[in-house]
Amino acid sequence: MALMNRDLCSLHYPINLSNTELQVKECRILKFGCNGKKKLMSVKASASGTGNSKSIDTINGKKINGVHVGQRGNVVIEPGSSSSSSSSSVNHSYMLGNFVDERFVYRQSFVIRSYEIGPDKTATMETIMNLLQETALNHVANSGVGSNGFGATREMSLRKLIWVVTRIQIKVEQYSSWGDVVEIDTWVDASGKNGMRRDWIIRDSNTRNIITKATSIWVIMNRETRKLSKIPEQVKAEVRPFYINKFAIPTAQIDSEKIEKLNDETAQIITSGLAVRRIMHPRWSDMDANQHVNNVKYIGWILESVPINVLEDCNLMSLTLEYRRECQLSNVLQSMTTMREIATSESDKNSGMECTHLIRMEADQAEVVRARSIWQPKQ
Amino acid sequence: MALMNRDLCSLHYPINLSNTELQVKECRILKFGCNGKKKLMSVKASASGTGNSKSIDTINGKKINGVHVGQRGNVVIEPGSSSSSSSSSVNHSYMLGNFVDERFVYRQSFVIRSYEIGPDKTATMETIMNLLQETALNHVANSGVGSNGFGATREMSLRKLIWVVTRIQIKVEQYSSWGDVVEIDTWVDASGKNGMRRDWIIRDSNTRNIITKATSIWVIMNRETRKLSKIPEQVKAEVRPFYINKFAIPTAQIDSEKIEKLNDETAQIITSGLAVRRIMHPRWSDMDANQHVNNVKYIGWILESVPINVLEDCNLMSLTLEYRRECQLSNVLQSMTTMREIATSESDKNSGMECTHLIRMEADQAEVVRARSIWQPKQ
Repeated sequence: MALMNRDLCSLHYPINLSNTELQVKECRILKFGCNGKKKLMSVKASASGTGNSKSIDTINGKKINGVHVGQRGNVVIEPGSSSSSSSSSVNHSYMLGNFVDERFVYRQSFVIRSYEIGPDKTATMETIMNLLQETALNHVANSGVGSNGFGATREMSLRKLIWVVTRIQIKVEQYSSWGDVVEIDTWVDASGKNGMRRDWIIRDSNTRNIITKATSIWVIMNRETRKLSKIPEQVKAEVRPFYINKFAIPTAQIDSEKIEKLNDETAQIITSGLAVRRIMHPRWSDMDANQHVNNVKYIGWILESVPINVLEDCNLMSLTLEYRRECQLSNVLQSMTTMREIATSESDKNSGMECTHLIRMEADQAEVVRARSIWQPKQ
Repeated sequence: MALMNRDLCSLHYPINLSNTELQVKECRILKFGCNGKKKLMSVKASASGTGNSKSIDTINGKKINGVHVGQRGNVVIEPGSSSSSSSSSVNHSYMLGNFVDERFVYRQSFVIRSYEIGPDKTATMETIMNLLQETALNHVANSGVGSNGFGATREMSLRKLIWVVTRIQIKVEQYSSWGDVVEIDTWVDASGKNGMRRDWIIRDSNTRNIITKATSIWVIMNRETRKLSKIPEQVKAEVRPFYINKFAIPTAQIDSEKIEKLNDETAQIITSGLAVRRIMHPRWSDMDANQHVNNVKYIGWILESVPINVLEDCNLMSLTLEYRRECQLSNVLQSMTTMREIATSESDKNSGMECTHLIRMEADQAEVVRARSIWQPKQ
């Protein structure tokens, strides 16, 4: 436990966190799950470790107290200015989402577009993460507490605070094809005292099967000092009415294992020549509206150091990203990957691959993102 | 004229074209406009050079003869398998498009998503081109003549033929913001004997203003030999009923000027130190379902060699891409840009910048894409 805490506290995303009193508490929530899981999360027995999708729909809901979230199903088009057009025949509200499950869950459907599929003609992991992000932002924007449109609440904007993701895990059971319609549900819950957990499930609209599950941990940062912050009471009051204790990924299946830190030595020893290292720099088009590298872009860089035969012959079944440091346009980055064979099914002990990844700064080798991925051979 | 033809015929996209009998004819259509414009295009007086958007809506329509394109407004969801879901409350047909203007025009609306905007919080040029591509593919898929979903007709698929774009010009008058709804119209016309012209206009759904216009030239390639092909009569019979003689960009405004070929000397001389050269390689995630670099990805590479102060301080008002050679995962590319000041308004003779770009192979300096861009300072 001491080791874990020391390791977790070496996190310095944002860079200036290391000398703040908040450090220890924040580090505990940065790493959800692990040994500290039970203390940090309030897990209902009905949702814990059941491992099937039914548990998702049978969790109880708390009542919303006092926060206006609009009429059920009556979604105000936000953000943007083009909510209505008398001369257009298209009902644009169908393009957005709506609240379901007593307004604890926000649901939005998407058609997978031609440019969102990869070489194997299915939606890429970047596409999935883009759609998760879009649904999350629309959830906040339509909740009645959003302000700037980028996920911050009004009370957060008043204090120059923003949400930053520290860890996200995406488990894909089936990739969608171009033209498929997917339906994404998202909701939030507390994660410790100063974190928020956001979960998603993606259903195939046709079969109604759950094809992807994801969970993530968010903390609050001051957008000017880039330091982490406690969640102010006023912000808690805004978001608490939306919290619902339900898990997309059963807690027993959440990837809470430490992601090993790669370095030149371990990468070479472990991989026996399989290690691939690529040097890259963020492109202008990788920047988001906050002038920082968009969270999703790291996926492309991680995949750059995965051997081509894995990319071609395997499906990416699970990806866990641990964000440790911000990255800007001027940074030059390295992408490193090591791999080992693992059992992904009971019948075959060497049926898949587990990769460990590191994106680090070339200049000082500071860690930017650690990641773990699980791959299964295509059928 | 002789010079122009010689230059045009040095085009070798695809690589194996140079010794085919088809060469001269194809080269003429690869470069639409120029001196050969009047011969190659049948331009209606009413659409030529009027320079206002009204001309777009007042062009006559030919009758569709014998091709089933479905009930007006009754769009079959294609491609994909998830057309209906009895348990879902979302009407997915609203997410797709429908035929208008006597079925000569296909119209589809899109909400600009959070991840489709750039650092200045407006839709990027890549986003625009992605949406144009999506609308075009859905146009074919819903026309009744599509086969594989990637724009090929049934008669093309039987012959292993695909469409390839040789030139595209996009003129942006206003960039959309996140949450804005845009409505895209697209239609096709003949371009010479063996080409097809595809045009688009993008309207802001709220104001109904036309905010972007685009035009492109497509030819047919054998997907196995990668050689250009004449359009078979059976294919002409499929697509001809959809042809309509109308121009998104008035012909007088179409960028038909030759795009200068950059080389090490001209780049240095012309730019006096402004030239920026970047070396890059296609990523796995840049590949499309045909295992080739997606047309849209070149935009990001072109922008990589544009000075950062231009990217930050100017709006990209017009982009013309001339595709000359295919590019694959193993290629290492160079991106080069030169710039000069130009007048983009009558009142200010040096109000903007014109850039010439080249993406070429590092190995043999073979040209991949030439491009021209026009930039205006942000207000």
